[in-house]
Amino acid sequence: MTLTRRDFARIGALGLAARFVPSALAQSNDRKTGYAVIGLGRIADHFMRGVRNTTNSKITALVSGHRDKAEKIAAQYGVASGSIYSYENFDEIAKNPAVEAVYVALPNSMHAEYTIRAAKAGKHVLCEKPMCLNVAEAEAMIAACKKANVKLMIAYRCHYEPTNLKAVKLIRDGALGQVQSIESPFGFNIRAGEWRLSKKLAGGGPLFDVGIYSLNACRYLTGEEPAQISAYASVIDKDGRFNEVEENVGWTMRFPSGIVASCTTTYGANMPGYFRVYGSKGWLQVDQAFVYEGLRLRGEFEGTKLDELNPARDPSHFQAEADHFSHCVQNGLEPQSPGEEGLRDMRYITEIYRTAGISI
Amino acid sequence: MTLTRRDFARIGALGLAARFVPSALAQSNDRKTGYAVIGLGRIADHFMRGVRNTTNSKITALVSGHRDKAEKIAAQYGVASGSIYSYENFDEIAKNPAVEAVYVALPNSMHAEYTIRAAKAGKHVLCEKPMCLNVAEAEAMIAACKKANVKLMIAYRCHYEPTNLKAVKLIRDGALGQVQSIESPFGFNIRAGEWRLSKKLAGGGPLFDVGIYSLNACRYLTGEEPAQISAYASVIDKDGRFNEVEENVGWTMRFPSGIVASCTTTYGANMPGYFRVYGSKGWLQVDQAFVYEGLRLRGEFEGTKLDELNPARDPSHFQAEADHFSHCVQNGLEPQSPGEEGLRDMRYITEIYRTAGISI
Repeated sequence: MTLTRRDFARIGALGLAARFVPSALAQSNDRKTGYAVIGLGRIADHFMRGVRNTTNSKITALVSGHRDKAEKIAAQYGVASGSIYSYENFDEIAKNPAVEAVYVALPNSMHAEYTIRAAKAGKHVLCEKPMCLNVAEAEAMIAACKKANVKLMIAYRCHYEPTNLKAVKLIRDGALGQVQSIESPFGFNIRAGEWRLSKKLAGGGPLFDVGIYSLNACRYLTGEEPAQISAYASVIDKDGRFNEVEENVGWTMRFPSGIVASCTTTYGANMPGYFRVYGSKGWLQVDQAFVYEGLRLRGEFEGTKLDELNPARDPSHFQAEADHFSHCVQNGLEPQSPGEEGLRDMRYITEIYRTAGISI
Repeated sequence: MTLTRRDFARIGALGLAARFVPSALAQSNDRKTGYAVIGLGRIADHFMRGVRNTTNSKITALVSGHRDKAEKIAAQYGVASGSIYSYENFDEIAKNPAVEAVYVALPNSMHAEYTIRAAKAGKHVLCEKPMCLNVAEAEAMIAACKKANVKLMIAYRCHYEPTNLKAVKLIRDGALGQVQSIESPFGFNIRAGEWRLSKKLAGGGPLFDVGIYSLNACRYLTGEEPAQISAYASVIDKDGRFNEVEENVGWTMRFPSGIVASCTTTYGANMPGYFRVYGSKGWLQVDQAFVYEGLRLRGEFEGTKLDELNPARDPSHFQAEADHFSHCVQNGLEPQSPGEEGLRDMRYITEIYRTAGISI
């Protein structure tokens, strides 16, 4: 599946619709898709709070290695005690009719396994990004979901977030004229001890974790797939954090139309994520583009000066994301960010690492 | 000559001194270095106004193909009618004792020729950036000035500009901790018909003209020389402007310490120049970093939040630059941005183009 500009405009509009009229959709349909949340870390908490704000989704099961923690959360979300699973008895979820879909919020290394096991259990899968550790895993995940006839969506929140979507729409509508170039950094100064620093668990360093936002943004902003990629990676701080994964990556991409994009990511410095797009008629920028709140759209083009702070607060992104996937599940639609979208990023990540001399 | 970090800190401090105490220097020395300005375009106007504000420099001759224009300017700056030269009789300047130095403000393709002719005439040379069209020309210019025992400085204004120097000093003083990465865009939407669009006159596109600021900034901000460079170039607008030179270039550089820098330049969009530096303890950014006024230094590091608008106005950069070169001429010092500095950028520009598939 290759997204054309037109496709993207269409599904972008769908994303907008899903975001802005959830109650309208729900009013005509009281059905709520039940989710089993697999992994109860920080992002699962955001997701569950988001689901609580939807009208078409609910949390119906939890999967965790910590029964105590799971029981507390189950009480908060009204999950039946019998719907708490461990990683060992997870496959029994197949017999639970309250679970229609799963949300995979595990370390990257477990995404493929639990997506495939969930598919085999007949559950639709919403899987966190990055999709998995490599292209082969991504292909296996897509094949498993196809075979089981369940939907697979990768949790690219920004595809469902109004400020990002507005930036895309302005660009598609020609507000910037011909786009020439994009820059997008995103990184943070990581603490020692995080699972993200284990190559086995994470697959790679900041590129897997946060750089993927910049990569993905350049693709949805242009509506094109990169034709050429070139990158450098480095480790500067010899303090033990970066024995397995890279600390910094900088990469340049050339898109078929000629648009050039420059991105950087790091685990060695706080680098608030943003993108800035330059076109023949002006520029636009979204600050805090990839975090849960505080998104700010600025721009200047053809006499317009834009400066809008999105008032939405965490967990509204997660609400929009869950809303969209449940809508797709309930109506037999393909999600806007299907497994193929994650596979594409996995291919580009592989290429970025390859040109930087890193094998994954 | 290779600049170490320590060298740069030293000469950076010299630059600061030259900027902030020109009258102190001048009070002990009433001598004014006389300049012949070669080429009377826009940038020459900025330079001449800058010189007027110094206490150690003056305009004593003009070189132009337009006698009328030159006479008007001569009247403004008190230049003797006999000190107006054409390109044909330029070499007679050797006999003019009022001319100690020249300022080369011609299209890039003429930099080498006039630098070498000026050196042969026994004049010191302040030459605009980009230094010339290619490495061979740069080497010939350096050799000619060495042979004639005259100084050669490339007019890298930002080396003498307080906001840029403050950013360098903060970084050298460790305010940002370990620098990890830098991004720097700079470009503009060019009008058809400019000499900058002629490969013969300009040597190349926006990389030669404005991208060089980003390239040079990454070098003075890190105090390192890029170890690896990779780039893409493109032409998107098929409107006749880019029949000879590229429209867009994006490039990534890896420095020996591991710092990664991403830069973009364009002739197809207005892209206000800035640089943003990310370190383990915080970040800093200079907006409008490469233009003549409006420079703004922002940053956050270790509890400090910085936001300073430099009140200096055009032509203060040119004043500082002329002040520095005259000071070097009068005291037998090597300029902070000698020919070798221009040669280095010429080598990196060549490498950027080479990796982008463009030969110069």
